[in-house]
Amino acid sequence: MRILSGMRSTGRLHLGHFVTLEKWKELQDSGNDCFYFVANWHGLTSHIDSTENFREWTLDIIRTYIAVGLDPEKSVLFIQSAIKEHAELFVYFSMLIPVSRLERVPTYKDQKEQILDRDLSSGGFLLYPVLQAADILMYLANGVPVGEDQIYHVELTREVARKFNNQFGEVFPEPEPILAKVPRLPGTDGRKMSKSYNNFILIDTDEKELWKMLAPMMTDPARKRRTDPGDPEKCPVWDYHKAFTTSQSDKDWVVNGCKTASIGCLDCKKLLQKNLVTSLSPVWEKLAYLKDNPRVVDRIIEEGNSKARAIAQETMRKVLRATKLGW
Amino acid sequence: MRILSGMRSTGRLHLGHFVTLEKWKELQDSGNDCFYFVANWHGLTSHIDSTENFREWTLDIIRTYIAVGLDPEKSVLFIQSAIKEHAELFVYFSMLIPVSRLERVPTYKDQKEQILDRDLSSGGFLLYPVLQAADILMYLANGVPVGEDQIYHVELTREVARKFNNQFGEVFPEPEPILAKVPRLPGTDGRKMSKSYNNFILIDTDEKELWKMLAPMMTDPARKRRTDPGDPEKCPVWDYHKAFTTSQSDKDWVVNGCKTASIGCLDCKKLLQKNLVTSLSPVWEKLAYLKDNPRVVDRIIEEGNSKARAIAQETMRKVLRATKLGW
Ligand code: SF4
Ligand code: SF4
Repeated sequence: MRILSGMRSTGRLHLGHFVTLEKWKELQDSGNDCFYFVANWHGLTSHIDSTENFREWTLDIIRTYIAVGLDPEKSVLFIQSAIKEHAELFVYFSMLIPVSRLERVPTYKDQKEQILDRDLSSGGFLLYPVLQAADILMYLANGVPVGEDQIYHVELTREVARKFNNQFGEVFPEPEPILAKVPRLPGTDGRKMSKSYNNFILIDTDEKELWKMLAPMMTDPARKRRTDPGDPEKCPVWDYHKAFTTSQSDKDWVVNGCKTASIGCLDCKKLLQKNLVTSLSPVWEKLAYLKDNPRVVDRIIEEGNSKARAIAQETMRKVLRATKLGW
Repeated sequence: MRILSGMRSTGRLHLGHFVTLEKWKELQDSGNDCFYFVANWHGLTSHIDSTENFREWTLDIIRTYIAVGLDPEKSVLFIQSAIKEHAELFVYFSMLIPVSRLERVPTYKDQKEQILDRDLSSGGFLLYPVLQAADILMYLANGVPVGEDQIYHVELTREVARKFNNQFGEVFPEPEPILAKVPRLPGTDGRKMSKSYNNFILIDTDEKELWKMLAPMMTDPARKRRTDPGDPEKCPVWDYHKAFTTSQSDKDWVVNGCKTASIGCLDCKKLLQKNLVTSLSPVWEKLAYLKDNPRVVDRIIEEGNSKARAIAQETMRKVLRATKLGW
């Protein structure tokens, strides 16, 4: 399958992204033809006032892609703003989708209601899913790994493909969403992860910093004293164990120890710390190497961009042939 | 001044366009630095079902530009879809303008109400003025010849420029509308010119076809009989005289003859025919030459596109430096 997905350049990546990236790596390692990009134009929709950070955020994302095992020899890693053709295809697609349809996109309504500290009033934000359709269809992707909340966007992409093909002849496939079963990770305070709460754990961290986030982490409020039993299902630490503690005996130790108060929350967190360090150490090593060798990263980006661009240009040739708008 | 304007590829050009093109030529001949383009992406907003005609319409527009005296040695004549950078700049600008602002653009509301035989529901149609802002600001134009109804679009372009400059630093000028005093030309039936009424006179026609349009042309309904006096101000033929009859004695002859019934409407139309042929003959000659020599036109388009593209790329370099999104 041809796979495409991307992350927005709106901050540095955290463990919530890490579990997603592991799914992307699985898709790569099971022999799919994968395109993973940094969506920096999409970053503009909410963070137009922060573009001075976009370069560093973009580099952090690309380094993390590589460090978690997205292999530039196997997958095409690239940056949206480097491929002008996405904007070109976006113009064509914007003619195919009614405003009323875009206003009904659930994430559009939800985010306008929920995100109040950012300006989401722009035309670009309304047309976000159309640009996303251009990102996906540009590479004739037929599979798009997404979270629950993005399924509707893939549906809209299918609609764009269908409308284009009906109008101009068969050019695009109708991609399927690949619903990755990603463990749910709350913020360290039990709320939704959010930059304004500073309640997330960066991927690019170290043992000491990691413990600084874990030590004060919220636990089941029932365990006021060391001797109070708790319920892991009410504890964010347990959500992290489910994602990062692989051994069944470790898991049993947590669940039993918590319910019988035979372990303290600090013991529980120390085990999590140990298991997180095991998962993240190889990533940290590669990140350190990539930060010390920026030209390696630059070269990977250049190569990825140029592979992506070649395909994008080929797709646009098809689009211009179909629409008869080529000059 | 740096001047930019364009016509949409939604049909062949008629005398309404001719009087506008004469103003464009004046701007060129008075030593301005002019960019005149064919807006074929804008054509998509209303004519996505007619792209099989876009190539011929686009060629007709470019040939007519040249035939009326827009000189490729003095002005840059180019085609929008050949300059991908317009789409790229459009993406950036789309992040700057609120949806609510776009919904209040008068032409948006008017056209949605008045044009019922075309689908104007698309996101692309809503964002039309943003793409127009990209067209204009790409060339750092400071003057935009427009009709009354397009003044608001230039106002919105100024707003885009201002917002971009505030956010990212000074890149764009705030262009001024140049309100060309163009004679009002109604359709030959007295209604607004419209493709569905077939009530307009093409520029690319000949004496015989011209007369076929003029002979049945509507006149002042008061002149039922040859002996009934009329009022030129109630007659579309007189609107055409005002645009194409230059000699004052000809004009006096029409006004007096009409009011006193000393001339018939046919006499009046014959004079108009004569004067139109005088204006159009040199245009017809050049059009015939250009149709016989398509490679001349192709070369002019290629050269215009490449001059436009060089400036567009330079502007995008400034945009990427300012937004820090370059790769
Ligand atoms: S023992 Fe572990 S799972 Fe139970 S409340 Fe404490 S931190 Fe949470
Ligand atoms: S004489 Fe001329 S101006 Fe008067 S009504 Fe006839 S066509 Fe019109």
